[in-house]
Amino acid sequence: MAKITPLFSLKNLLVVSLALNVSLIWRAMHESEKCNFDSSFSLQQQRRSVMAGCVLKEKEHVSERTHLSLSSSPSPSPSSSLTSTDIQSQDGGERIINVDHGDPTMYEKYWQKAGDKTTIVIPGWQSLSYFSDVRNLCWFLEPEFAKEVVRLHKVVGNAITENHHIVVGTGSTQLFQAALYALSSQDASEPISVVSAAPYYSSYPSITDCVKSRLYKWAGDAKRFNKDGPYIELVTSPNNPDGSVRQSVVNRSGGILVHDLAYYWPQYTSITYPADHDLMLFTVSKSTGHAGTRIGWALVKDMEVAKKMTKYIELNTIGVSKDSQLRAAKVLKVVSDSCKPSGSEDECFFEFTNHQMSTRWKQLRMAVQKSGLFSVPELPSQFCTFLGRAFEPQPGNSSVNAFHVTFL
Amino acid sequence: MAKITPLFSLKNLLVVSLALNVSLIWRAMHESEKCNFDSSFSLQQQRRSVMAGCVLKEKEHVSERTHLSLSSSPSPSPSSSLTSTDIQSQDGGERIINVDHGDPTMYEKYWQKAGDKTTIVIPGWQSLSYFSDVRNLCWFLEPEFAKEVVRLHKVVGNAITENHHIVVGTGSTQLFQAALYALSSQDASEPISVVSAAPYYSSYPSITDCVKSRLYKWAGDAKRFNKDGPYIELVTSPNNPDGSVRQSVVNRSGGILVHDLAYYWPQYTSITYPADHDLMLFTVSKSTGHAGTRIGWALVKDMEVAKKMTKYIELNTIGVSKDSQLRAAKVLKVVSDSCKPSGSEDECFFEFTNHQMSTRWKQLRMAVQKSGLFSVPELPSQFCTFLGRAFEPQPGNSSVNAFHVTFL
Repeated sequence: MAKITPLFSLKNLLVVSLALNVSLIWRAMHESEKCNFDSSFSLQQQRRSVMAGCVLKEKEHVSERTHLSLSSSPSPSPSSSLTSTDIQSQDGGERIINVDHGDPTMYEKYWQKAGDKTTIVIPGWQSLSYFSDVRNLCWFLEPEFAKEVVRLHKVVGNAITENHHIVVGTGSTQLFQAALYALSSQDASEPISVVSAAPYYSSYPSITDCVKSRLYKWAGDAKRFNKDGPYIELVTSPNNPDGSVRQSVVNRSGGILVHDLAYYWPQYTSITYPADHDLMLFTVSKSTGHAGTRIGWALVKDMEVAKKMTKYIELNTIGVSKDSQLRAAKVLKVVSDSCKPSGSEDECFFEFTNHQMSTRWKQLRMAVQKSGLFSVPELPSQFCTFLGRAFEPQPGNSSVNAFHVTFL
Repeated sequence: MAKITPLFSLKNLLVVSLALNVSLIWRAMHESEKCNFDSSFSLQQQRRSVMAGCVLKEKEHVSERTHLSLSSSPSPSPSSSLTSTDIQSQDGGERIINVDHGDPTMYEKYWQKAGDKTTIVIPGWQSLSYFSDVRNLCWFLEPEFAKEVVRLHKVVGNAITENHHIVVGTGSTQLFQAALYALSSQDASEPISVVSAAPYYSSYPSITDCVKSRLYKWAGDAKRFNKDGPYIELVTSPNNPDGSVRQSVVNRSGGILVHDLAYYWPQYTSITYPADHDLMLFTVSKSTGHAGTRIGWALVKDMEVAKKMTKYIELNTIGVSKDSQLRAAKVLKVVSDSCKPSGSEDECFFEFTNHQMSTRWKQLRMAVQKSGLFSVPELPSQFCTFLGRAFEPQPGNSSVNAFHVTFL
């Protein structure tokens, strides 16, 4: 820490350092204890961070009473500090800027401008049944939602839906567990190893080992994985937390890949090819910002795998909220409509959100540069087939993790 | 089978018998293999039974081309043949009356009559956030839904909400798993036993052992449970499948009780006291018929247990659909309003649905009596503090299980 600007006093550096320690201790505990419960921390984090803000927008206000909270929270989602909008004032006027995770409420502006187009009206007598489409392998999948998923992927060009089955889930988190269930063997003598190249989404271990399944088990960094036998590798691309474009790293026989493509949308990264993997996960939370709906979807090539994923969701929650599926269908439709090649009365959703992310990243880079405390990794610019221009990745996820160890 | 009426030919009896065999074989396999996957069966069942009907309403049409399907399906829910409305015509004109499970669509009539009162309008910019109420232990619980849960229990008098925390879930199925997670110990040397007095809801074993947790394990009939050490006993009252009013049967130290009160509503059974147990599960599917919303709730006395249940749902699905919670809040409000002591312009929801169930049970008893093949158990009449009159239990669940072994 050679260079310290007047922006931070020593007192504040100490606070940052202590917060980092707490974070690292927690992370170490978390690694060993996996899903052991620490509710007080979690709840406190939630309370502190729900309105947590974006360091960049508020950089003018950073004073000696403002400090960063770098704690790694076990709470909500692979979401993003860069998709949050607010900053929380604590008792006594201290400001906590939590850049660990966020909430995609920044897209609210777009949806407010869109007005009634995405308003959904559900009469009390609708959607009483458990069933959505009994002719479909995934019997709780609303046909309208499935249709809009297919259309949106076609419009954006980020995934092939042909020859894939769609399985809807209560967010992609449930689908991730459904995939583990579907890809593991009921008869195996030991749990199948689940790996992902570090740095990986911090909740993967907790989710995988939550109920200590004998079917699957978290086995850490894919780059260090050298155990014989079958394994499941999670390929998160763009990656959470660092936004890098990824491919499988283990590359051995017996491996099964799950592609978490939650952030493979044009506001975060360049669309370079239509993904055509065996099992791909997506979520409305990241694509349109509707985290409260808890809707995700999987594109699955193998019919038996899709059936087993459906079975898991049947046993876990007997299907997925119809109301939210119908709402998500309407939202996806409006997104596709807004990006029609022939033009639309609305601004294309991805142009708007790409611009939002771009602005925020510029501000973050400026603030980080001024602080002299951190560096932000430079990621290569790529041509986006959807937006028709090249841009650097602008991850929406917990970007602090990408630079919190890079002290200058 | 001493008496055979002309209603059934020998050929049809054979079909019934074969179906029963399939059911029993499947059940035996199911017991041993627990949650092993049999998607073809499941899907077939779903396809066949989605529009499955009520034997009673259609009894006039029972002919030599109609047969009962008694197979025990692993698919949707502890729901009811007596809450389904339709009958499915197969290719070739054969009718399959599946009385194994159903769909609460019969309440649709009430909700249609209620008109716009329960219509919900959600603008596209609403409910983007993951969070519902950060001041609440259950941070994804919509305050409006919590308020209406408390009010409805007060109106009906079926449960005490004071000194209980409310945890919302994606149906009570997810809350059941959250309870198992919360009540088991992370450090135990072996999984805690999970038991319930037979006959129990046929999906309990599959759900409990779905991912072969090392935290908890299905241990079968509570009446035969004689293992030392801690255990979790599920007390389902009224019981699924037989509608009986139940209490704990193990009664040993180290036992933790989970009360599944999904059917403790005045359309199914007399409300005799406000339940005040440590952990009680309820669901909108059974109380109002809105199965498609996938909303359930738990009333939990111990704060640490409620926190751990919240933690499970956070890891499992990062919360619960806001859209469905808001919709459920509106539906519960209309139910409470319709049953106001001062009277309402609408018929009290529970009067209407109690009458529907009563009519169907009368028809079922008549049909069963005429067939001479089965008997339906007589359950004692009790005074209902809510409806102000005595009536016999009229279970909404898979009542066929209650009499399928009672051949005359």
